[in-house]
Amino acid sequence: VAAVHYALWREKDNPVKIVSSNPAEGTQRVLDIEETSTESVIELAERARDAAQWYAAQSLHWRSDLLGAMAVELERDGDHLVELALFETALPRPRLEGELRRTAFQLRFFASVVAEGSFLQASIDHATDSPMGPLPDLRRWRVPLGPVAVFGSSNFPFAFSVPGGDTASAFAAGCPVVVKAHPAHPATSEGCYDALQRAVRGAGAPEGLLAIVYGFEAGKALVDAPAIAAVGFTGSVAAGRALWQRANARPVPIPFFGELGSANPLVVTRSGAVRSSEIGIGVAESMTLGVGQFCTKPGLIFVPNGDEGNALVAAIVETLEKLSDMTMLSVGIATHFRQGVNVLDGLATTRLYGDSNGYAEAHVGASLFEVSAGTFAKAATTLRDECFGPVALVIRYDDVDDLRGALEVSDAALTFSLFVGDSDRDEKWILELAARKAGRVIVNGYPTGVGVSWSMQHGGPWPSTTNAAATSVGAAAIDRWLRPVTYQGVPEGLLPAALRDANSLGISRRVDGVVR
Amino acid sequence: VAAVHYALWREKDNPVKIVSSNPAEGTQRVLDIEETSTESVIELAERARDAAQWYAAQSLHWRSDLLGAMAVELERDGDHLVELALFETALPRPRLEGELRRTAFQLRFFASVVAEGSFLQASIDHATDSPMGPLPDLRRWRVPLGPVAVFGSSNFPFAFSVPGGDTASAFAAGCPVVVKAHPAHPATSEGCYDALQRAVRGAGAPEGLLAIVYGFEAGKALVDAPAIAAVGFTGSVAAGRALWQRANARPVPIPFFGELGSANPLVVTRSGAVRSSEIGIGVAESMTLGVGQFCTKPGLIFVPNGDEGNALVAAIVETLEKLSDMTMLSVGIATHFRQGVNVLDGLATTRLYGDSNGYAEAHVGASLFEVSAGTFAKAATTLRDECFGPVALVIRYDDVDDLRGALEVSDAALTFSLFVGDSDRDEKWILELAARKAGRVIVNGYPTGVGVSWSMQHGGPWPSTTNAAATSVGAAAIDRWLRPVTYQGVPEGLLPAALRDANSLGISRRVDGVVR
Repeated sequence: VAAVHYALWREKDNPVKIVSSNPAEGTQRVLDIEETSTESVIELAERARDAAQWYAAQSLHWRSDLLGAMAVELERDGDHLVELALFETALPRPRLEGELRRTAFQLRFFASVVAEGSFLQASIDHATDSPMGPLPDLRRWRVPLGPVAVFGSSNFPFAFSVPGGDTASAFAAGCPVVVKAHPAHPATSEGCYDALQRAVRGAGAPEGLLAIVYGFEAGKALVDAPAIAAVGFTGSVAAGRALWQRANARPVPIPFFGELGSANPLVVTRSGAVRSSEIGIGVAESMTLGVGQFCTKPGLIFVPNGDEGNALVAAIVETLEKLSDMTMLSVGIATHFRQGVNVLDGLATTRLYGDSNGYAEAHVGASLFEVSAGTFAKAATTLRDECFGPVALVIRYDDVDDLRGALEVSDAALTFSLFVGDSDRDEKWILELAARKAGRVIVNGYPTGVGVSWSMQHGGPWPSTTNAAATSVGAAAIDRWLRPVTYQGVPEGLLPAALRDANSLGISRRVDGVVR
Repeated sequence: VAAVHYALWREKDNPVKIVSSNPAEGTQRVLDIEETSTESVIELAERARDAAQWYAAQSLHWRSDLLGAMAVELERDGDHLVELALFETALPRPRLEGELRRTAFQLRFFASVVAEGSFLQASIDHATDSPMGPLPDLRRWRVPLGPVAVFGSSNFPFAFSVPGGDTASAFAAGCPVVVKAHPAHPATSEGCYDALQRAVRGAGAPEGLLAIVYGFEAGKALVDAPAIAAVGFTGSVAAGRALWQRANARPVPIPFFGELGSANPLVVTRSGAVRSSEIGIGVAESMTLGVGQFCTKPGLIFVPNGDEGNALVAAIVETLEKLSDMTMLSVGIATHFRQGVNVLDGLATTRLYGDSNGYAEAHVGASLFEVSAGTFAKAATTLRDECFGPVALVIRYDDVDDLRGALEVSDAALTFSLFVGDSDRDEKWILELAARKAGRVIVNGYPTGVGVSWSMQHGGPWPSTTNAAATSVGAAAIDRWLRPVTYQGVPEGLLPAALRDANSLGISRRVDGVVR
């Protein structure tokens, strides 16, 4: 997704104040928040490290309750938070209300993941004789990494921001969190922080368990802060790659989990194209959902040549024509979008819909372009890049070889969607390619919904993320903030409860190689 | 562990030939192997990528059988391979025979991990209504990353080299392997490669499933090769960090799992020091095992001041005095070791045992140094670095604060050993610190044995590895070579067998959130 910088308010020698902007109206208000100094960032990270040891010593039950309390406090401030987000994001009220509900649901989901306990991956090998001689008693589980820095996204002011999946999964893993507030919604960030901090205080935890910092420089200082143990990031390829390199360049490098850009392919096969009108409407709705500001937006639409394909493309255009003008999350993002559309205009063969003229500030309209599969396969890679916003590129193909050639040159993505008909046996090769190229493969569905569940994968090979083994949504998001420790020959009384013979936590464990 | 470069044999314009060196005798023989050109490296990696798709389509049963066949072929050539390694490593025959057995055992262990199937982390969420509305059918498992580059270590010519844990776990995960032969044992590497390749051919697999490359430049080219999907490395901090940065600098960065240096702490508490003589002998044996060329060698020995501590240190020295002179793996490693000992000599307060004079080429003697905890805590960090070889630094402390101060400044390590007496309640803080600082925590035992089992963790925070969440020994070593993929709404007939409702593979799975 696109990068955006703070609107700043600097007055003589006073510290820089953070500004909250309304992209729909173009109005601004100066918040009573200053940019966080590097010294403060380092101190907040150290406070988080102190809290980490305290937090790791609490029970799973306590940790689960904390997450539940966070959900309650977030909902308690719901109306106020939605108002703040309405002002700052121009997203419609029902969407923001739904996103807040989802975010509270996600906190409760991680509360249940903590209570269930299998994320600890507890494994006990009693001392035994092996073909290699005696093996000592070995017991392995996973411990929290320490303070996690969270860089939220612009496009989900709740679900992928201060109280979002990175924060919820880090707390679930037993890690304190220091959030870098997103410049596109600082007031919403502060409001969410206040709600979560109330839960922290109410639980009697040290305040250092949760902190928030503001400002571009503060973000860099946060990645550098010695007490920070890992980073979760959702944003653009450029910003993500720069911060990832920064994390790698530290004297003690730390893991960086970045969800970056993704031009998600959506393939309609010949047999799928029979439902041309239904799929065309669905594609148009999915690519413009949230003003096209979803990292899972289908951006590359592969459609067969011929009548049915033509009808499908016509249905997309017809649906787009019914849309009103739209407001993006910020002027910066809209400007970036218009630049991207202009690039597509220069590289694609046909503009099927849309016109960049007449839009200014944060206001934009949808666009649709077309190119042949052959041209796509040979074109500059910029044609295949993500363009964040309500735009898609239709790629028309003749046959399987034509389609395969175009798909093989596509970058990896978060998702890969496939619309097929009943004769689905011939599509196995596409599913194999899709699993190589994406973290989630969808048949006869749209990629823009990302359910919070045990089996969700929201991640994919580079450049869609910095780490294809990780997910930022679903139960496995907790895996990012843990590392294994094995205890060898440690007396029962000195072992953590999860690794004692008596399974007092009642969690799923592997004992002598067998899952119980 | 220390870096070492190829001995090369260049004759006029002919390609560079690889040389096999005998560190004990100082003799060499030119092998009929050339350095691998960059073009060949790229081609071998591409061949591996082609094989990857074929391999991923084979059943778990087939994959498990392949690993078993590799163990058989390795054992079939056992006598020959041990002879090659004797010449190249100067390690004693029983050690090499044991290591070969262990390596075959490890291949069979991973065969059983594959057959057991829970490494797939298969999870099925049937379509359901959630508080957030309908959730689609979601099914998640883990797929192989693709061709893995393996950089084996100098110190274990079998167990951490061509047929070692990285290779075994990568094949178990479903990934082809391209090994970079270690310059300290190229003939052994070639011999092991031949044995494994026989198993590949015997199974009817494409030859590209396994490849080997030789030469310093070939190693760099291998990390750069576009078809390589991940790297496993065991070696020095310097070489590991350089190759890790190289992997990160690729246009498409790839995960790099490096096991680097580790100065493993071993703490004897006051109550533990009662068994001074027994522990002293054990420490001396552990620190000189395999000529001190274990990445788990206890290098920092924390001993209380006072009579019992003195007796313990005396027991270490007495045991060292009984040792003969030793031969290290190569002249380069021995030279590096002597340099490290000289640095310690300049920084430590007392030399308790040993004398660098009189040794040359690959021949060395053991050394032991002493320093107070206070000096250790304030000293240059080089005093706390790993010195690969038969040397350790004894750190003498007065009380708990003194000990804690010295331990807090120590780097993270692969292992942390603790010798305690019966009054073990007071040692909880050390175990907590140990779990923060190391991947394996050992009570009343020595760190040098690393058992192959479900619960083993061989890894630790930076600088002991590049990725604290990974292990290079034990069942979880397979995790490094996998990434998750979720299938959404995919018809049963198009799903992989592991994710169909009928659990035909009979593997442990999570279904609708419950482990079954």
